Amino acid sequence: MDKDLKIKFDFNYMMEDFIGEKGIKHQQINEILHKIVKAQENMEIKRKDGKMDFRELPYNQDEVVEEINKFVEDTKGKIENFVVLGIGGSALGPIAVQQAVNHLYYNELTKEKRNGCPKLYVLDNVDPERIVALLDIIDIEKTMFNVVSKSGGTPETMSQFMIIEKMLLDKVGQEKAKELMVFTTDKEKGNLIKISKQKGYKMFIIPEGVGGRFSQLTPVGLLPAAMCGIDIKEMLKGAATMDEMCKAHDIFENPAYMYAILHYIAMTNGANISVMMPYADSLKYMSDWYAQLWAESTGKKYDTEGEVVNRGQTPAKALGVTDQHSQLQLYTEGPFDKIVVLMGVGEYKKTLDIPKVHEDIDSIAFLGGHTQNELISLEQMATEYALLKSGRMNMTITLPKVCEHTVGQLLYLLEVATVFMCELLEVDSFNQPGVEEGKNAMYAMFGKPGYEEKKNELMARPEKMEKYMI
Amino acid sequence: MDKDLKIKFDFNYMMEDFIGEKGIKHQQINEILHKIVKAQENMEIKRKDGKMDFRELPYNQDEVVEEINKFVEDTKGKIENFVVLGIGGSALGPIAVQQAVNHLYYNELTKEKRNGCPKLYVLDNVDPERIVALLDIIDIEKTMFNVVSKSGGTPETMSQFMIIEKMLLDKVGQEKAKELMVFTTDKEKGNLIKISKQKGYKMFIIPEGVGGRFSQLTPVGLLPAAMCGIDIKEMLKGAATMDEMCKAHDIFENPAYMYAILHYIAMTNGANISVMMPYADSLKYMSDWYAQLWAESTGKKYDTEGEVVNRGQTPAKALGVTDQHSQLQLYTEGPFDKIVVLMGVGEYKKTLDIPKVHEDIDSIAFLGGHTQNELISLEQMATEYALLKSGRMNMTITLPKVCEHTVGQLLYLLEVATVFMCELLEVDSFNQPGVEEGKNAMYAMFGKPGYEEKKNELMARPEKMEKYMI
Repeated sequence: MDKDLKIKFDFNYMMEDFIGEKGIKHQQINEILHKIVKAQENMEIKRKDGKMDFRELPYNQDEVVEEINKFVEDTKGKIENFVVLGIGGSALGPIAVQQAVNHLYYNELTKEKRNGCPKLYVLDNVDPERIVALLDIIDIEKTMFNVVSKSGGTPETMSQFMIIEKMLLDKVGQEKAKELMVFTTDKEKGNLIKISKQKGYKMFIIPEGVGGRFSQLTPVGLLPAAMCGIDIKEMLKGAATMDEMCKAHDIFENPAYMYAILHYIAMTNGANISVMMPYADSLKYMSDWYAQLWAESTGKKYDTEGEVVNRGQTPAKALGVTDQHSQLQLYTEGPFDKIVVLMGVGEYKKTLDIPKVHEDIDSIAFLGGHTQNELISLEQMATEYALLKSGRMNMTITLPKVCEHTVGQLLYLLEVATVFMCELLEVDSFNQPGVEEGKNAMYAMFGKPGYEEKKNELMARPEKMEKYMI
Repeated sequence: MDKDLKIKFDFNYMMEDFIGEKGIKHQQINEILHKIVKAQENMEIKRKDGKMDFRELPYNQDEVVEEINKFVEDTKGKIENFVVLGIGGSALGPIAVQQAVNHLYYNELTKEKRNGCPKLYVLDNVDPERIVALLDIIDIEKTMFNVVSKSGGTPETMSQFMIIEKMLLDKVGQEKAKELMVFTTDKEKGNLIKISKQKGYKMFIIPEGVGGRFSQLTPVGLLPAAMCGIDIKEMLKGAATMDEMCKAHDIFENPAYMYAILHYIAMTNGANISVMMPYADSLKYMSDWYAQLWAESTGKKYDTEGEVVNRGQTPAKALGVTDQHSQLQLYTEGPFDKIVVLMGVGEYKKTLDIPKVHEDIDSIAFLGGHTQNELISLEQMATEYALLKSGRMNMTITLPKVCEHTVGQLLYLLEVATVFMCELLEVDSFNQPGVEEGKNAMYAMFGKPGYEEKKNELMARPEKMEKYMI
């Protein structure tokens, strides 16, 4: 591995040694060592037992990577747009990686500047205005649609598919539509398999044991990335590099374990919020991706013993330096209820000089002769310092630069950290029983067969009171 | 006022009557009546004493609106892009309003479809990659830059200005540059006044008593909106409508007061997080705007008596239905530490049918014959129901439709609610002392004159330990 590309993790300012009484005492780590050891054992056992399939993704996808890259090569130049129809992890991962690696205004570049790659759109909502608006700006005959759903039953994604497929069939017919539709779905079960077989749509497979929010390093994320010219092999290599680091038995050498341990202790100390605050526009949507991972994995009613615990830590998203003018006031002066995870970049992709102008105005003249690079990095340092001075727990993840390799590392780091956090919290990382109630209510109101009783229950709920409405 | 445009506020599911023990008891409102009355009095006194200038904005801007509209008319057709250089409220407001009222892919529409209006870009960060990327896609000779800074000393915005002005001068010269630069700043003090006088740049004034995060209804927000074809008169009319509602003395008739009261009580019951979750892509960035308003206003170390209190409530952003697949699991099953503010839309701008296709597949066939409009609305209702069933406090704000008038109402509602919340919390709504430490540290490291001592302090801070780095 290229040592210069290794992500760094600095947790000095989580510790009492630096921030004082609201920090974590070294002793607190020792006090939960039994818990940590058990969690480590569980991680290893589950991996061996094939219950942690996402961890094998850096190694077992040579074939599919080749297939994806060939598919991308074959479509090259034939399409103008690549549209992902997906929701949750299936949408947030592709957006995050695209924003991180590619040009910040990728879709507004000319085709030449995109190296002939298609524009990328991700339709992750069922707002009727969204699809209609998209159709105002794209030519569907030159657009490939990637339907992403493990079960092929996700109503949001499938309703989008039904709308788009009908439009395509009406406009270009089945033969041509075959070239413009690609599915990413489960190998054996589900509707998309069936439809793919009926109609002959191309299909990529999501490995069975990998759930939606851990699927960015499967074809769910790899296909859209490769379509936009991103080197997915390198991304997987980055993930493999991080896997090595995450195997370290010494927790002081293991960034994922330590990240989780600190979050766990901080949480027991009262921090029910974890803020992710990257200092780079390119990493902005990593916070969104991470927020779904952390929230849906840690937020559970029952622990693994079946006890009601209502656990979980709420992720919050911020962006440096922008949110220094928005959230930082609260972070430094508000309640001691959060951890701030700063994310920095060693070397930005561009350098931008601030010219020596307006030298007669002292209060801005000092900026001249520096660079925006210095400004953003020093502002990050200044925020870290302000948090330190106000006794607020904060840690920093630094990417030497933002590229496929480091993004692969980062994704994998946060995935392992999330699962380890769930081990410490003693909750199931991989399920999401809490979304069923809402789903069932929606099915009932929509008249899905089999939900008649649920509908009766809904109709029988107490009427709202006028006095509680304005 | 057009009654059909009135925003509705429904707080049934905040109450114990519906959600059970974790809800607010009607009695709890009565218990703090003295506090409420005092806060109401303060609001009225402060308004009379001219200490709440943002509340007069719907009424005292006829002249400036005319000036803005004339300016927009004069530039029409001459520029392709309008770029805001601003940060915090100055950036988040314009983005939120643009997204709400205009086409979801506004910048990607043809000029004709934009009715000849320029594209809008908001540069709210000093990431060096951002400006460089922007220059890849725009022609600066056809771009107007709007520098927004009250003091003209905001280093982020001013460094951007210095870079851009130099580029313009090198490329087109001072005379032409005059046509491509417009300032929004304070009337009397500050650098931008000085520079404007030196160079002859056009200038719009931010009323003196209105701070950054309350400035969306001043030229800060009005100019970018009008530039993109948004009817700013109508927006102010909406705000005036809401002002009338927010004058109601009966708290059960006053949406802003009731919003704050419920948040206050919920907070004392343990909800240190408030989630805003609009069910509309158009309202997505309202959550960002609101988050800065709520966080920076409520998050304070000292109360108005000077006691250390470390108060504040953390805003979190979510988007329906998207985040049902991301955050909802945590909201329904995690700790009882949050309020969820759902935001709905009565009538979306478009209707989209889901066709009756794939009728052989039961698990999706039931979607056919419905619309995406029904789907998103029923999903919102289903989320509300899921929150109800799990005993989670939630409330709903409904915009009959998303347009200038309702957006004006919404902005004003949330501003008044924020200030009333601060009255209840007994903290100053309008200051942000907590951002000084970071600012000063940055100045020190950047070598700003007068910050030598701060630099010494910074250099003398304890060195980080290797053992706390991986």
